[in-house]
Amino acid sequence: MEQLDKLEAHFKRLSHFQHLAAICGWDQATMMPDGGNHARADAMAELALYCHQQMTQPELGDWFADVDEKSRHLSATQKASVAEMKRQWQQASVLPDTLVKAKSLAGAKCEHAWRQQRQDNDWDGFAKNLKEVVALAREEAHIRADQKLCAPYDALLDLYEPGMTAERIDEVFGALKQWLPETIQAVVDKQAQQPVITPKGPFPQAQQKALGEHVMKQLGFSFEYGRLDISTHPFCGGVPTDVRITTRYDEQDFTSALMGVIHETGHARYEQGLPQDLAGLPVGQARSMGVHESQSLFFEMQLARSAPFATLICQQAKQAFNRQDDPAFQVENLHRVLTEVSPGYIRVDADEVTYPAHIMLRYDIERDLISGKMEVDHIPERWDTAMQQYLGLSTAGNYKNGCMQDIHWTDGSFGYFPTYTLGALYAAQLMQAMRQQLDVDGIIASGNLSPIFDWLSQHIWQRASTTSTDNLLKDATGETLNPAHFREYIQGRYL
Amino acid sequence: MEQLDKLEAHFKRLSHFQHLAAICGWDQATMMPDGGNHARADAMAELALYCHQQMTQPELGDWFADVDEKSRHLSATQKASVAEMKRQWQQASVLPDTLVKAKSLAGAKCEHAWRQQRQDNDWDGFAKNLKEVVALAREEAHIRADQKLCAPYDALLDLYEPGMTAERIDEVFGALKQWLPETIQAVVDKQAQQPVITPKGPFPQAQQKALGEHVMKQLGFSFEYGRLDISTHPFCGGVPTDVRITTRYDEQDFTSALMGVIHETGHARYEQGLPQDLAGLPVGQARSMGVHESQSLFFEMQLARSAPFATLICQQAKQAFNRQDDPAFQVENLHRVLTEVSPGYIRVDADEVTYPAHIMLRYDIERDLISGKMEVDHIPERWDTAMQQYLGLSTAGNYKNGCMQDIHWTDGSFGYFPTYTLGALYAAQLMQAMRQQLDVDGIIASGNLSPIFDWLSQHIWQRASTTSTDNLLKDATGETLNPAHFREYIQGRYL
Repeated sequence: MEQLDKLEAHFKRLSHFQHLAAICGWDQATMMPDGGNHARADAMAELALYCHQQMTQPELGDWFADVDEKSRHLSATQKASVAEMKRQWQQASVLPDTLVKAKSLAGAKCEHAWRQQRQDNDWDGFAKNLKEVVALAREEAHIRADQKLCAPYDALLDLYEPGMTAERIDEVFGALKQWLPETIQAVVDKQAQQPVITPKGPFPQAQQKALGEHVMKQLGFSFEYGRLDISTHPFCGGVPTDVRITTRYDEQDFTSALMGVIHETGHARYEQGLPQDLAGLPVGQARSMGVHESQSLFFEMQLARSAPFATLICQQAKQAFNRQDDPAFQVENLHRVLTEVSPGYIRVDADEVTYPAHIMLRYDIERDLISGKMEVDHIPERWDTAMQQYLGLSTAGNYKNGCMQDIHWTDGSFGYFPTYTLGALYAAQLMQAMRQQLDVDGIIASGNLSPIFDWLSQHIWQRASTTSTDNLLKDATGETLNPAHFREYIQGRYL
Repeated sequence: MEQLDKLEAHFKRLSHFQHLAAICGWDQATMMPDGGNHARADAMAELALYCHQQMTQPELGDWFADVDEKSRHLSATQKASVAEMKRQWQQASVLPDTLVKAKSLAGAKCEHAWRQQRQDNDWDGFAKNLKEVVALAREEAHIRADQKLCAPYDALLDLYEPGMTAERIDEVFGALKQWLPETIQAVVDKQAQQPVITPKGPFPQAQQKALGEHVMKQLGFSFEYGRLDISTHPFCGGVPTDVRITTRYDEQDFTSALMGVIHETGHARYEQGLPQDLAGLPVGQARSMGVHESQSLFFEMQLARSAPFATLICQQAKQAFNRQDDPAFQVENLHRVLTEVSPGYIRVDADEVTYPAHIMLRYDIERDLISGKMEVDHIPERWDTAMQQYLGLSTAGNYKNGCMQDIHWTDGSFGYFPTYTLGALYAAQLMQAMRQQLDVDGIIASGNLSPIFDWLSQHIWQRASTTSTDNLLKDATGETLNPAHFREYIQGRYL
């Protein structure tokens, strides 16, 4: 079909420019000297503008209309391809340029000031900028909601986790809230009875890197199609044929970089495992932020913190750091180190048991901010209440380790936070289904994990965006999202 | 003036895309894993096509016409700005798309096959492809010549060294030919009387890198605005606020990487020293390939192989490799190592005395190939004759170390070779003029070389493309290109 060909050629062409943006973005975070930033930012902004123009070209509307008319002749994959192109096109073109610009300015201003304000614990200064950002996010949510005929917050969710709704999250997180705080307390009490020997540094960076690369290979990361580097904030970037993951090294604690590398390797394998025949098309991209996070958490939590994997890591870490006789490196102790649970203020430092608490409190706040049920001024109080309720910690007056700790809201990325915990729930559900078909622990213990990756490849990676998250889960596990698996998993591993 | 503003905005916008191409090109040569090449090549080709389209947009012609009409109102810098934009625009738009495509295909085919053919010493196979490339280069030269109203080969020269002509090069190289072969012989004879102790490896890569970075700092390279990395073929890339130079390390010979780094640092300082107020405009770019090479050779030859610099390097190399008592690292010996002259087959391995011989023979051949005075089949014979005449070496039957050694002709870059030797001549002339104003040896000996760089900045770097190469030389040295300074320099240093 001629118009479908035109659409796909257009998006493939666009993907070449997105490729360049991905590599230059990676470079900016890993390689670029400080002085290069100003000109680079200008170049990246020019490219972003060009990509936006390409994404919103007027003729696309006609092509979509034409394809829609003849959609009965399309195969299932073609239909999915059209739907994904259309989703990106609508998302890009629905906002008026004035709003896009205002958002970008307010976000940049808020984020820039936040870097200092956080250090200064300056809530009043931050709140002033955040109010602007929230006002614009509300405007954005309403415009997107009108287009999608849904609730405003759901329209923002759709940017990160298509098909997800606040109603569904309320239900799922509601179930979590029933048992999580109590479970956290029970795990903490149980672990207080178990002595843990913390491995003592220094762990030289070169040895940590070698260990990380060794584990990446064991996890099937292809260095023919990717690299590992260093950045302040770890991420997975690049393109499917050239995936760039990063970490940062703490010479006193090798587990932090190692688990980070394993996490990013999960993201990376999803990207490296996307179907080549759909390369360059939206339908060939990863399904969603939540599904992406499910893969990184599958690697980091489901696999790497399991007892049999701790045995593998233990051997490798002993060799890497020459600690054959160090009691901290005995397998049982190391597994305890990797599964230590400790309620804390900071989300990015949280273990997998307390992590959902951080997310739920953010979700409750941002949902009500967008709906207009609450205002920026009430964030600190609500934060403090939820932290006390979930984790027994107060953040009263402690803004920098409370509601000012994350970058996400500064530029208006509302709807993003829930995907972290959705990913954790998906991962637990996938592992539960996998265990019914595979002897997962035996496979891990064997050191050859391919059957696990083949399963993920078949059920997740190779399907890209050819179907919805609900369908992916249903086809892979026999049901749509069911948070009971996460409870079973957490309580099984930790209690 | 409205149309001038439009033109400058257009070229500045284009420079943002060229920025991304430079960084992704650097990445391709230094960081990219092999598997990433296919998608990267597609992305880079898409970007090149887009840049070409932007460079040849039809409305540019109208804007230039309008600006030309009102040119009497322009300042000198504005006039230069218009001239440089126009030069790039004309160069990009004069060739018909069919020729551009045919050139690109024939060049890619010839270069790709050459990589294997060179190893196989397969002249016949190579000649077949090269004939296609030469035929298209002749076509290109004629079209460009018609536009510029000049001789075909001069039109190609203009791509690399604007304003230069074959007539002038014939004259300059003619003078060189008078004395160079004899001088080479005399230097070789003289050096045969001087014992040289070759420093013995291993010289670990990390120590070589540290030494290179130390010397780069001494030469004023700003790591705030640039980096040093590794690639198979050393180059200077990136953008003026983020200059990326590369080298390769031979653990048996530290001088090769060190001199390479110093060479690229010369290129880098030119880029880092370009005027910021003209950034993004053609007039703000380096003047030409020849002037660029003059800076790298000024650093590598004029500075770094001088006796006082050898003293500096000697101290630093002793420390870097812990060779305080190694006789090879005594200053007189090290200076001899750095100034060894030895006729050889390979251009890229040549010293500064024999290097022009390699260039002159290539120039003679390519000039006659383009004018139609000779054909591809006669290249090997003519190569052999010239090698015997200039360097006393025969390349009969030895194609791979003869006329098949370079990549330049494979994709049709005729007109490029002469700029290497023009650069060497410019460098000698600049140094001669500098010595009349500065105590260059004393400055080098002091270790603080800033006065030298200030002089280059004032006379070369800061002037960018605001005037012609002739004028640059005249303003800096009191005369246009005068090859006598190179003779004086070579004979003074080596005889």
